[in-house]
Amino acid sequence: MEVEEIRVTPWEAEAFVDYNKLIKIFGSRPITESEIELLKSITGELHLMIRRYVFYSHRDFDKFLEAYRSSIKCALYTGRGPSGHTHLGHILPWIFTKWLQDKMGLELFFQMTDDEKFWHSEGGSFEEYNRLAYENILDLAALGLDPAKTHVIIDSEDISFIYPIAVKVAKKITFSTQRAAFGFTDSTNVGMIFYPTLQISVAFLPTHLYGERVEVLIPAGIDQDPYWRIARDMAPSLGYPKPAQIHNKLLPGLGIGGKMSSSKPETAIYTTDSPEIARQKVMKAFTGGQPTAELQRRLGGNPDMCPVFKMFEMLFEEDDEKLTMRYNSCKSGALLCGECKAELADRVARFLKDHQTRRRAAESIIDKYLIRNKFSTPGTSKSKRP
Amino acid sequence: MEVEEIRVTPWEAEAFVDYNKLIKIFGSRPITESEIELLKSITGELHLMIRRYVFYSHRDFDKFLEAYRSSIKCALYTGRGPSGHTHLGHILPWIFTKWLQDKMGLELFFQMTDDEKFWHSEGGSFEEYNRLAYENILDLAALGLDPAKTHVIIDSEDISFIYPIAVKVAKKITFSTQRAAFGFTDSTNVGMIFYPTLQISVAFLPTHLYGERVEVLIPAGIDQDPYWRIARDMAPSLGYPKPAQIHNKLLPGLGIGGKMSSSKPETAIYTTDSPEIARQKVMKAFTGGQPTAELQRRLGGNPDMCPVFKMFEMLFEEDDEKLTMRYNSCKSGALLCGECKAELADRVARFLKDHQTRRRAAESIIDKYLIRNKFSTPGTSKSKRP
Repeated sequence: MEVEEIRVTPWEAEAFVDYNKLIKIFGSRPITESEIELLKSITGELHLMIRRYVFYSHRDFDKFLEAYRSSIKCALYTGRGPSGHTHLGHILPWIFTKWLQDKMGLELFFQMTDDEKFWHSEGGSFEEYNRLAYENILDLAALGLDPAKTHVIIDSEDISFIYPIAVKVAKKITFSTQRAAFGFTDSTNVGMIFYPTLQISVAFLPTHLYGERVEVLIPAGIDQDPYWRIARDMAPSLGYPKPAQIHNKLLPGLGIGGKMSSSKPETAIYTTDSPEIARQKVMKAFTGGQPTAELQRRLGGNPDMCPVFKMFEMLFEEDDEKLTMRYNSCKSGALLCGECKAELADRVARFLKDHQTRRRAAESIIDKYLIRNKFSTPGTSKSKRP
Repeated sequence: MEVEEIRVTPWEAEAFVDYNKLIKIFGSRPITESEIELLKSITGELHLMIRRYVFYSHRDFDKFLEAYRSSIKCALYTGRGPSGHTHLGHILPWIFTKWLQDKMGLELFFQMTDDEKFWHSEGGSFEEYNRLAYENILDLAALGLDPAKTHVIIDSEDISFIYPIAVKVAKKITFSTQRAAFGFTDSTNVGMIFYPTLQISVAFLPTHLYGERVEVLIPAGIDQDPYWRIARDMAPSLGYPKPAQIHNKLLPGLGIGGKMSSSKPETAIYTTDSPEIARQKVMKAFTGGQPTAELQRRLGGNPDMCPVFKMFEMLFEEDDEKLTMRYNSCKSGALLCGECKAELADRVARFLKDHQTRRRAAESIIDKYLIRNKFSTPGTSKSKRP
């Protein structure tokens, strides 16, 4: 099985894929009862994304949890390429990350890669990506991530926090390594070629900032694994712990196949969509149902391939029993797609209304999330005059 | 004529080369009477390095001087890779840069590339290159560069000043461009591949910092031209003026051929050498003289190929008439090498004694040279919250 057969690179990824195959391709490990029990022993309860294996794969999640139990300092790290407004596919791992933050009392380092998005774009202006980074922070705040414990690094402006680490990381990565890991070519711009050092460096930043070993867990899509493989390879030689990872499944878009993606805005629910627009998008969604109500009643639907069901499963139905009922009544043909979509539309609209109220309120506290307002630059404080 | 035939890349350069050939290879222009007259109309007098064509080649030096005469804001830019202590070959262009600063009242942006030196090194520690950057600033101070007008950027610590520019520069450079310009290969580390964007970005920093067009003149060796060619190509599309350059000949080392270089420390005079050590190095210098005093008296010496004569010509003999006399008495065989070297040793020892006194005194004012103590980071001040 070649990686190329399933399109999962940091820049394109499908949603309805065989996740067991992905685990084999990437060489990660499935999340099993044993990691789940370990987590539960710490958190007391389990988030729906764990119960339902939305987070399905990991590297050293068990070791991370063991370190936490041994009172070794731990932190979370994830991030976002601010190429547009945030949609539900983006916030899915953030919701789980917030849950971990709350249950385990962890600091979160959150990287906004405005530089990378500009380097990767066809023609967008850098200023726009930088502006979007601030827009996206509002979503972190609206989700309730703790401003005292959530430290946002906007690459272009907070580069002084990561560059002293990146200098050492960059020395250990050759162009060949990058080409093998990311498919770069001779016509790739040197920003893209350098960028992985910055994403890797943030994994080492907590240890660097605190001057003590900090174990880092990265909740993210498995498509980001190439970065962390390089990070894990070099970590020991730089004196940092290897970052652990947990990988989430991708939220499907509302169209036929594919993840929720800004490249198909009509199939994505943005946090900035008006509840009414979102409702319309849901009502137009592709489903796993039959072409007619009659056929649906006779043959039943296919919730496993249905983005509407997946929205309930991965985000909007907390209650396991109710989710099972929905699954069964879809399969049996008792539940028609129109009804199911209307129910989802209600939940989505309600979520957006609340989220947008919190999002507006967050405008006054955005500064509290910026790392530059909370830590001094390690580079500057470290340097001694001769 | 291939570039490879004369070894002049940013990492190796010979001293006794045919500089007219270099001008042809690099496609720069020779400095002629016309630029010299223009300079004199501004400065009133001419530095020995101009009178003697130590600065022999340029790009747009004339345009830079015309801009200055038209009261357009102008600045100087040069730098150093802090891979060791400073020797006389390094300070040669700095001495001329100081003269320009004094005569024209110009600000100087000075880049210390501790990152690049680390990336290029075989095994040095990054902390050591960073420490050497501060050591090297002492030499700038000892030479009398104006602390109010000289702004030192230490890459690893002042990255936030240049990164917002570098993001845009990096997008315009592909790996192919870098390979063609610098001979990079697949096994080059990604720091080296990214580095040129940082050196280029400082050429645009004055305009960025002042928010108005600032014409920049770069006094440096012609080996740095590949950076500036790329900078000049992209400058218009980024809204910056093309940096002008003047190129100096390389000070020969005291051995047989080759520039003064840290790779042959016994043939280089460091600003930290004790006057006594420096005297010994000079007395052991290779010269353009004959094997014996008898032959020298009969056949005369060859000052054109003599590093001792070059030291007088390029640095230590201000008086043109005296220099001509020295040249002629060498040629005629009247002046023996021992005598000539003893005279140079005296000058060098005197220079070092004074320089080292000023260097020690500079330790208390090093902070006045750091850009971070004088300007606010443009990235941070520019960014607006949404």
